[in-house]
Amino acid sequence: MSHPGATVSDRHKVVIVGSGFGGLTAAKTLKRADVDIKLIARTTHHLFQPLLYQVATGIISEGEIAPATRVVLRKQRNAQVLLGDVTHVDLENKLVHSELLGHDYATPYDSLIIAAGAGQSYFGNDHFAEWAPGMKSIDDALELRGRILGAFEQAERSSDPERRAKLLTFVVVGAGPTGVEMAGQIAELADHTLKGTFRHIDSTRARVILLDAAPAVLPPMGEKLGNKAKARLEKMGVEIQLNAMVTDVDRNGITVKDPDGSVRRIESACKVWSAGVSASPLGKDLAAQSGVELDRAGRVKVQPDLSLPGHPNVFVVGDMAAVEGVPGMAQGAIQGGKYAARLIKNEVKGANPAFREPFEYFDKGSMATVSRFNAVAKVGPLEFGGFIAWLAWLVLHLVYLVGFKTKIVTLLSWTVTFLGRNRGQLTITEQQAYARTRIEELEEIAAAVTETEREREQAAS
Amino acid sequence: MSHPGATVSDRHKVVIVGSGFGGLTAAKTLKRADVDIKLIARTTHHLFQPLLYQVATGIISEGEIAPATRVVLRKQRNAQVLLGDVTHVDLENKLVHSELLGHDYATPYDSLIIAAGAGQSYFGNDHFAEWAPGMKSIDDALELRGRILGAFEQAERSSDPERRAKLLTFVVVGAGPTGVEMAGQIAELADHTLKGTFRHIDSTRARVILLDAAPAVLPPMGEKLGNKAKARLEKMGVEIQLNAMVTDVDRNGITVKDPDGSVRRIESACKVWSAGVSASPLGKDLAAQSGVELDRAGRVKVQPDLSLPGHPNVFVVGDMAAVEGVPGMAQGAIQGGKYAARLIKNEVKGANPAFREPFEYFDKGSMATVSRFNAVAKVGPLEFGGFIAWLAWLVLHLVYLVGFKTKIVTLLSWTVTFLGRNRGQLTITEQQAYARTRIEELEEIAAAVTETEREREQAAS
Repeated sequence: MSHPGATVSDRHKVVIVGSGFGGLTAAKTLKRADVDIKLIARTTHHLFQPLLYQVATGIISEGEIAPATRVVLRKQRNAQVLLGDVTHVDLENKLVHSELLGHDYATPYDSLIIAAGAGQSYFGNDHFAEWAPGMKSIDDALELRGRILGAFEQAERSSDPERRAKLLTFVVVGAGPTGVEMAGQIAELADHTLKGTFRHIDSTRARVILLDAAPAVLPPMGEKLGNKAKARLEKMGVEIQLNAMVTDVDRNGITVKDPDGSVRRIESACKVWSAGVSASPLGKDLAAQSGVELDRAGRVKVQPDLSLPGHPNVFVVGDMAAVEGVPGMAQGAIQGGKYAARLIKNEVKGANPAFREPFEYFDKGSMATVSRFNAVAKVGPLEFGGFIAWLAWLVLHLVYLVGFKTKIVTLLSWTVTFLGRNRGQLTITEQQAYARTRIEELEEIAAAVTETEREREQAAS
Repeated sequence: MSHPGATVSDRHKVVIVGSGFGGLTAAKTLKRADVDIKLIARTTHHLFQPLLYQVATGIISEGEIAPATRVVLRKQRNAQVLLGDVTHVDLENKLVHSELLGHDYATPYDSLIIAAGAGQSYFGNDHFAEWAPGMKSIDDALELRGRILGAFEQAERSSDPERRAKLLTFVVVGAGPTGVEMAGQIAELADHTLKGTFRHIDSTRARVILLDAAPAVLPPMGEKLGNKAKARLEKMGVEIQLNAMVTDVDRNGITVKDPDGSVRRIESACKVWSAGVSASPLGKDLAAQSGVELDRAGRVKVQPDLSLPGHPNVFVVGDMAAVEGVPGMAQGAIQGGKYAARLIKNEVKGANPAFREPFEYFDKGSMATVSRFNAVAKVGPLEFGGFIAWLAWLVLHLVYLVGFKTKIVTLLSWTVTFLGRNRGQLTITEQQAYARTRIEELEEIAAAVTETEREREQAAS
């Protein structure tokens, strides 16, 4: 067996944490740099997150938006892709610690780019997660696909009208782009894709509720576009409840507090959480060592050059970094990753780290799809919605996906899906259909142990 | 909410168990019959099992071979699709009992077609299953995709040569069509798809071992074609070990007994089991009530008209039925399902059940792919291999898939894959990458309880 990577190199070592937009862009930017790159990520794939909702609602397969990172970087000989969960960055000894299946690894770096992203935030109520999964990973999307389709399946078998109503009520918490897209696509699924496939229930009678504590839909897009999106969703039959604060989430539904202080209950089997983000816990790890401040979402308050104070060789980019004026979107991560990588590339060639130009974000605009043929877009002072915005959205996304060679298949799937309203990816696994019975069984045993031990302790005291 | 299915009908009630080739064909054959059909299945999809190995090895997505059964039968208004695990058939009261998430359902029938298929058989060693999953379901295929790709990922991180060798040794047990296809595709994955994507290991050095207790590859295809397939696999670098009996399978490998009685060990992290099938346990349930005999694989020895002795309204078709001269292949199930459905259709119209023509199987031939552009086929007295056989295989499979409207996308995926050697579906979930740590943790607790209870019992005795 040959080990080309095992030869000891004295080239400048760059470690990149994360294979999202920030990490992958950083690696690609260093393509021709005289460095050794190790990209360490929790997943084996790069995730094109803007289309994750299409995986969750059965439009496209996970492979189409999650190409294997090592295949994407195959030809970049100076980059090695490593699977592992980064648990700790040792700033003093310049080591990145990662874990894979009980094995711990320490990877040395000269320069470090941390782009570990953000997870879903439940604002201190992490027990909501079990009943309202987030929309951050392929695991989330496939889990939600199973829950959404599973709810219809259970409703078809149920003869209890209350249970059936609960199963056919879908609640999406959070009216940002992901929430809007999810609510719109669940409605399309119920009204078109599944229409006429059941005999006992009518899928088009399913309720889809989009709920937010804020007073607007798509707040960062401004009032005009927010109202456009809201009107479109309502036309599709989505119920929009604003100024509605979620106070509890459980197996059977959700508890909501309205502005007048009254508390009400929505019975719902399937809930989706897209209400907030919380930066990777690595931020805390960095703060503890470098004294850098974190914002409320756990994001690292980096220097103007995206580095950690006192550690000019350690950069934090993307959703993990708090930079004034940079939104937590793909563009922010892409531009941050590119900026940090260019600094490293230039300084390896001899540029003086003391004279860095600060990072400047270039706002290319933002967009969100509402339904097929309908989107809203904001580019500089320009605001527009409808079919033109959707076409712009389609072209932009396809151009981006070109790099991963999945374009043709994705384009075809989309065309087939959007024209025919059929969806090719409605498959759910048996494990999902039968809701982790094994785990529940084991958890019962585990709970029983704790109970027994408590009893024994009480008897002993 | 409207409930078209809730109206009580006095039409002849047909219940079909299973959504595989037998069950789905039976339902479609009854399209214009004056009957009410309820198709109850464990999965929400019809599975095109001959291509399951392509899902396991990242060539196509699960959606392409597993369309939602209710979408396939959408326009057939006399058929209702129900998700549930059939646990018991009550022959006396003509009821099919099924279970879904703790709810039990009893469905009455006038006629019943049982096509519940077969699972993997470990010949009494069910504990092998955890370390060598079968290849029977979408769950199996996705699990194996995670294990195969995960083994390469772990090897890339390992600095221990023994562990690396174990991770890069893949053992496929069973040299039938599925085993041959799996071994061939793992070899292609290692030699081409993943080539050049690792830096520390060389994926092309991976060992793929195809092992069987029998003395031949593809025994039902005959010596000539078996040898053709064997030669082709060996050319691809697959090691073929025949007359090799597996005596144990554990986390780290497999123990094998050779014909001379000597026992040896193969260290291997990723094992695939495709060595035998065992019919659905529903067979035992039927035997206990009707006295019908089962063969060694648990298949029901049906009457010449595929019915149960003493129960002319209950048919068993496909992999669950033992019929002289009918192989456990798609064609056997399709023809059996069609035959039983036609009898029901005719008898509802007034035909006399006393004069049934016995079921006759028409052998359309069989084929197996070995690698891209290479297959072996047997049609009547005709035996051929190579590119022509592969082309025949391709055309036949595409024609079959036409019915599910996934043809265009599948064709395109295949073309892209077979010409470019890239694979679009290499995505694995985090749950797979990190190997069910939660389950392992809970199992440890559960094991500890049993241990504690045993101790307590000993203390008490």
